[in-house]
Amino acid sequence: MQQQVRVIRFAKAPASSEPCRLMVRKSSEGVGKVESRFFHYSESFPLASGGALESFDLAYEVYGELSPAKDNAILLFHALSGSQHAAGINPEVPGLGDRWTSECREGWWDLFIGPGRALDTNRYCVICANYLGGCYGSTGPSSAHPADGKPYGSRFPRVSVSDIVRSQLALLDELGIDRLHAVVGSSVGGLLALQLATDCPDRVRNVITMASSMVTSPLQHLLNFEQISAIESDPHFRHGDYYEGRHPDAGLALARRISHKTFVSIETIERRARGDIKQPEDHLSWYELNLSLESYMLHQGNKFVRRFDANTYLRIVDAWQRFDLVGESGGVDADVFKRCEDQHYLIFTIDSDVCFYPEQQSRLKLALDQAEVPNMHITVHSQKGHDSFLLEPELFTPHLAYALRS
Amino acid sequence: MQQQVRVIRFAKAPASSEPCRLMVRKSSEGVGKVESRFFHYSESFPLASGGALESFDLAYEVYGELSPAKDNAILLFHALSGSQHAAGINPEVPGLGDRWTSECREGWWDLFIGPGRALDTNRYCVICANYLGGCYGSTGPSSAHPADGKPYGSRFPRVSVSDIVRSQLALLDELGIDRLHAVVGSSVGGLLALQLATDCPDRVRNVITMASSMVTSPLQHLLNFEQISAIESDPHFRHGDYYEGRHPDAGLALARRISHKTFVSIETIERRARGDIKQPEDHLSWYELNLSLESYMLHQGNKFVRRFDANTYLRIVDAWQRFDLVGESGGVDADVFKRCEDQHYLIFTIDSDVCFYPEQQSRLKLALDQAEVPNMHITVHSQKGHDSFLLEPELFTPHLAYALRS
Repeated sequence: MQQQVRVIRFAKAPASSEPCRLMVRKSSEGVGKVESRFFHYSESFPLASGGALESFDLAYEVYGELSPAKDNAILLFHALSGSQHAAGINPEVPGLGDRWTSECREGWWDLFIGPGRALDTNRYCVICANYLGGCYGSTGPSSAHPADGKPYGSRFPRVSVSDIVRSQLALLDELGIDRLHAVVGSSVGGLLALQLATDCPDRVRNVITMASSMVTSPLQHLLNFEQISAIESDPHFRHGDYYEGRHPDAGLALARRISHKTFVSIETIERRARGDIKQPEDHLSWYELNLSLESYMLHQGNKFVRRFDANTYLRIVDAWQRFDLVGESGGVDADVFKRCEDQHYLIFTIDSDVCFYPEQQSRLKLALDQAEVPNMHITVHSQKGHDSFLLEPELFTPHLAYALRS
Repeated sequence: MQQQVRVIRFAKAPASSEPCRLMVRKSSEGVGKVESRFFHYSESFPLASGGALESFDLAYEVYGELSPAKDNAILLFHALSGSQHAAGINPEVPGLGDRWTSECREGWWDLFIGPGRALDTNRYCVICANYLGGCYGSTGPSSAHPADGKPYGSRFPRVSVSDIVRSQLALLDELGIDRLHAVVGSSVGGLLALQLATDCPDRVRNVITMASSMVTSPLQHLLNFEQISAIESDPHFRHGDYYEGRHPDAGLALARRISHKTFVSIETIERRARGDIKQPEDHLSWYELNLSLESYMLHQGNKFVRRFDANTYLRIVDAWQRFDLVGESGGVDADVFKRCEDQHYLIFTIDSDVCFYPEQQSRLKLALDQAEVPNMHITVHSQKGHDSFLLEPELFTPHLAYALRS
């Protein structure tokens, strides 16, 4: 039943100081046709913060084929540390080491995308782009500044959730897609989905969010701010201009550990943390590790550092920190959706989620009801916490498929 | 009804590199008689880690009078960042700045200790000592090393919960107290209370813990380890030998922020965080504050740094991290209490506690029941989270008084 694997490359990799983080050759298994492309936007792009980018590139992938009427497109937003590589398998690439290839070898939603899967590539054309400000090929702080070819670093401006959304609307314009069949986003990706859907109601029919929210909660504000501090406090951060020296790895690793415990249930962390206790040589000078849990968390932090850029992390966490659809709409929840009557929303809650708590989706559901916007709210029961949306397609697929076909 | 205020000083302040953190003159209001003393232990004191201290001092306070039979003593353990100053008011002391005097002006349990209060000083003699390893007068990393008069710093050994308990048993020996009427501890203080009660069942009759546990939970392990990393990653930490230069303030402040959100309910933090947003000049180079919540948390961290020592913080968090009464007893919960039939336990739960979760005290209660040890388990309902044990005497006083008189 699976289509033959084909690899097509439209890619023109943009200049970058860190090529091994950016462009790798692609193949796929199971997902069918995969295209790995770059979109170049050559005009000045104003940002919500008041600054502007002279131009930008977006790295994106496409699964399935766009219909002649261009009415079967699904825009998929990745989560905080995700990438455009949502499906298929990346081959090992000699000389690139284990950065992208081992960490991002398998598409992060490979279980959800392909022929007959939740996002059925026999029916839909799925598009996923690395965020503006990202570190997987889209223009971001580690990209080369057009003026001097050196990394942007601190020169890369703040981006907002709406900036990232607008950059991807520009991509849709380029592709000739006036109206999406659906926008889908999980976790931070859900923030982008809601921003797009409510900023431009006429550009998307179905809105699907999983484990997300229309405002950032106080607990998320606290945790995000801890992570920002962890990175900024690293002596190697140097205002973001660290590319020629050591990177703020300890700070980024600590940030990841602070967030990791909200992604995975504590029970899961305990179960996985059964390995040896290894005293790290570089991280701790006084403290002696005592628990396999500690080794496991250090490993999680260190693994992440190998595949992610601290400046990109800060940009996305900053955008998350400032995200507030209710505030933008004047402070009334239902007003967020006052132009959305023609859309249909599917809201997923994971009952064990401690990153985006179930109350956050209940509030979203209530606002949709008050605004009289058609919606479904589904709670899935999982032991896996927030990351259930990555790991348990069987919990989500029936409703995803149903909502997309309705 | 209140006794006349009397101030008695037995204190011989030990040598220290940071005198302003240590000894101040005392007076009191309401609590009655207050004695502020030092206990000097002049022999070698072996530690669980294998090391030893040549000698040590404990700074402690006494409220009420020891009976001729010495059978009315209550040993009170303070929490992680507390001190021996549990009750009464410290006067402002010219020249000391606002360190000890503003932060520790009022005893941390002033609402619970005094004539007619929960720990009734008309009946009981309440003793509270700063932990071994502490920074409020007991020998700790900021104290002068006997060999050279310079601060111990990294030379100060790891201390365990049982080490801290044994150091206070030595104090009880000195005072001629064979058996305590009660030991009382909240939060981390409860760990010490349980360690003392189960290590030496014949030395205490009543055991009272509030918002505590007999093992450290996986979530506490994660949060503690984040805090350790935050301090160790601070470039000014220098393996703990920072007393002659800048202190690891940013790391300690971040550690405090990580823990603070577990002490106070999120709703309380939100309510308190209504002030102006002030961009700090020293903490953040790239990130621009956006929320009063962020300013409030920075303030909490900075306030703490003024009154606490990072090395002491590490020692206590390390002791907490390794605390495991069940593991020490061979892995069976009930075996923790197998020699405790003659004691009586009062266990308090705070229903909104996200530092020591209610499940942790339920497990403790079950172990006591299985071991057939007399006990009461009381859950108080509070909106204030973990810190309810400091703030709401009316929720605890009736049961404290009842248990102590029974």
